[in-house]
Order: sequence, then structure tokens, then C-alpha cells
Amino acid sequence: MLKVTVIGSGNVAQHLIRVFNNSPGIEMVQAYARTPQSLLHLLPENKITDSFHNLEEADIYIISVTDDAISEVASALPFSRRLVVHTSGSVSQNSLDSKNKRGVFYPLQTFSKNKEVDFKKVPLCLESEHPEDYIVLEKLANAISDNVYSVDSTQRQSLHVAAVFVSNFVNHMYKLGNDICQTHNLPFDILKPLITETAAKVQLLNPAEAQTGPARRNDQTTIQKHIDFLEDENMKEIYHILSKSIQNTK
Amino acid sequence: MLKVTVIGSGNVAQHLIRVFNNSPGIEMVQAYARTPQSLLHLLPENKITDSFHNLEEADIYIISVTDDAISEVASALPFSRRLVVHTSGSVSQNSLDSKNKRGVFYPLQTFSKNKEVDFKKVPLCLESEHPEDYIVLEKLANAISDNVYSVDSTQRQSLHVAAVFVSNFVNHMYKLGNDICQTHNLPFDILKPLITETAAKVQLLNPAEAQTGPARRNDQTTIQKHIDFLEDENMKEIYHILSKSIQNTK
Repeated sequence: MLKVTVIGSGNVAQHLIRVFNNSPGIEMVQAYARTPQSLLHLLPENKITDSFHNLEEADIYIISVTDDAISEVASALPFSRRLVVHTSGSVSQNSLDSKNKRGVFYPLQTFSKNKEVDFKKVPLCLESEHPEDYIVLEKLANAISDNVYSVDSTQRQSLHVAAVFVSNFVNHMYKLGNDICQTHNLPFDILKPLITETAAKVQLLNPAEAQTGPARRNDQTTIQKHIDFLEDENMKEIYHILSKSIQNTK
Repeated sequence: MLKVTVIGSGNVAQHLIRVFNNSPGIEMVQAYARTPQSLLHLLPENKITDSFHNLEEADIYIISVTDDAISEVASALPFSRRLVVHTSGSVSQNSLDSKNKRGVFYPLQTFSKNKEVDFKKVPLCLESEHPEDYIVLEKLANAISDNVYSVDSTQRQSLHVAAVFVSNFVNHMYKLGNDICQTHNLPFDILKPLITETAAKVQLLNPAEAQTGPARRNDQTTIQKHIDFLEDENMKEIYHILSKSIQNTK
């Protein structure tokens, strides 16, 4: 039985607590939250604390707080020589206080409060200061996911940047598509099957093969027609730069 | 029984022929292809012609060729006063020769040669010169799809631009994510669940609500860290412009 404590009460923390609760090989020892009420729907009251000094012995402490707070929280922990990891894609392992054994447990997924996520499919990116701790982290990761990767700090940073492109920027493209529909009295629904299919395609083809559209075909007439059609200066600029980038792809 | 003839042998034409073949209320009269062999896997030889003069009577002629060729093909048809439509998102209805009754039958989806598409979910955007022809087009559309929309030429042009954003540009974001993974010896597979979830989210939430990431949080430290991390000038520029666009979103 792996004994786990989660420190934090945000989106990622709550998804982790939920999946740990439902995993046979894992014992949720405690969770820390500044406002314990925020976790009462997930854990009994006696397992939630708002004081680091009440934290009991566990095999792994998972700090899942905002990036800026990780270092401070790690330093505030009143114990040493235990395994302490964070869940951030962009914070280095060394930001954790060296009094404890350090590691990273980074789930590469976008989490929303009101949408269930199938954790079995969530890639978990693991890193540890000491090889023996990696085995513990891997055991925990394998208990909840089928996609476990060993990822060092530079790789993790690159993944975080890549995730901005394939998720945050992609979502912004959806948002601009929605804006265009609204301007022309069309429902966003009309674009949804295309969005689904575009994401489904790259599960099978690599993205370079899957590329279609006027820029891919070097169809300068359509590109110019589209840029002229757009009234918003920001959209014109984005259309121009992304078309140029596609055209420059070898 | 609706009698349909498809003119063209590309991706869209082939997908249409396949779905018409499988639809009880529709009779595939003929298909035109410059190289008839290209359609032999879909139709018997006697239903494929490479001469416009062999085209028999049908209720609807669907021109599904490259945008540049639509006008020429429409003019070359040796008959008049019949219903002739094209399947393009970006060509106006008036590009068709006025000797026939004109219309548009635009499937808003990305089609690949080797990937089946569930046509029931493909939005079909219809337009016709004469109201009585709209009824015929609608009947044909309803026979193959559950998503049929009346879309005028300006709306259709806006959809085509929106589709570039939510599909072509989105795919390019996947491609850049793939490039980043390759540079750091990571498999693209690690990003796939995130890609799927990001597309799934906007089926339920509107894209503005679904937006996450450093730009959305106005986290200038992480944005700068990411831009510094990227070595490619093109990626730096795209990261900067899209972050700015997200930050300027009200």
C-alpha cells in the first residue's frame, strides 16, 4: 500500500485526490488545503488539514499548488528526508527544498473543474533526484495511468511549451473561429465536427502529413481573399503569420 | 428516388460517391472522371464517363473539382436548365454557368483519402439560386447527414475562413508541438491525449471559457521563459503573437 498525501486544493490536486481515492493500491493519508471546506466533497474532515504541522508520515507528498507557491510550500514543510514532488510542467525539480528527497509528478493534460478526465490515458511525466525514489513514483503512476514517461527537467520544460501550442493556442484558434461564426450569425456547432476530426486525424497521421488548406497548397489567391475578408486586424495578422509558417514548412 | 451525378474524382467526390452508394433514397446515375480508372473501386465501369457528352439525365449534378476548375467545368456541360451545384467553401454560386440552375452543396469537414468519415455528422451547407431547388438539395442532404444548414455565400466564405483557423492552423500547432518533441527526443504520442481533450472540451464549453495557460493567466514570467526556451525564430514569433492575442481577449 502506497501512502500518499496531496498538498493543495486546485484543479489538479482535486483530480489527483479523486483518482487516488479510487485506486486499490493507494492510501490517501491526508490532504492539505488552506480552506479545508474546499475538499470536503472528496475526503472526510479528519483527513484534511490546514496546518503543515499536522501532516503525518506518508511515502509521497505531492505538492500541487500554483507554480509561484511551490518553493515556499516545500520550504515550509516541517520534516526532512521524505519524498516530496510537485506537479508542475514548468518548475524545476530543484525549486523544491533540498531538505527532502525531490521529484516531479507532472500530468500532461488540461483539467477543468466540471469535466471528468480518464486518468488511465493521462501521460504522467516523472523525474526524481534519487533513482530509488523513481521506483516509488513509477509505482504510484502505474497505479493510475497507462502512460508513464521518464522525463528530465529540460524535456519537461519543452513539453510544457509544446502543450501551450497544441492546447492553449489551439483553443485560441477555436475561439477565433467562434468569433467569425458569431459575426456572420452562424452557430459554433457547425465547426465542431471539423474540430473533432482534425484532432482525430493526428492520432493516426503525423501532423505534417495531415496538413491541408490554402497555405499548404500555396494557394496565394485564397490566402489573400481570406485576409481581405477578415476585418479584425489581429485576425489578419495571425492568418498571415500562420500561413507563412505553413508555407515555409519543408 | 433522387438521381445524382458526381463530376470529379478527388477526395470529396469519392467520399460523396461512397455515401450516395450506401443511401437507399439515392440513385448514383454516373460519375465523371478524366481518368475513369480512379473510380473503378467505387462504381461499375458503365457508370463512369470521361466525356461530358455522355452525361445522362439526373436530378442533381454535383461538381466536385478543384476551385480553379469549377467555372470551366460548369461551362463545358452540354445541357441547360438542370440543377448544378459545386462543393466548394470559397467559390461563389455565381461562378457556375447561368445556363443551368445553380446551387452549392458544401460539406464542412476535412477529408483524407485513407480515413473513413461518418457522413451523418458532417455539416452540409446548402445554397440555391431558386427556392424550389433548395428543397431538392435539402432532400439529398438529409439523406446522408444529420447536420444540414442553409448558408448564403457570405456566410459560406466566413465558414471557410473559420475552418482555416480551427483546422488548418490548429493542425499547424500540432506540427509545431511535434517539432518541439522531436528536438527533445520525446514521442509525439505524449501530446495526443491533450490534443483529444482540448478538442473535446469545446464540444461542451465555449472556447473563451475553455481557455487556460500562461497567456490567459497573464503570467508574463512563464511567457518570457517559453519564448527564451524556443530556439526557432518562427516559433518565437508565433508564441508571442498568439499570447498577445489571448491576453487582448476581453
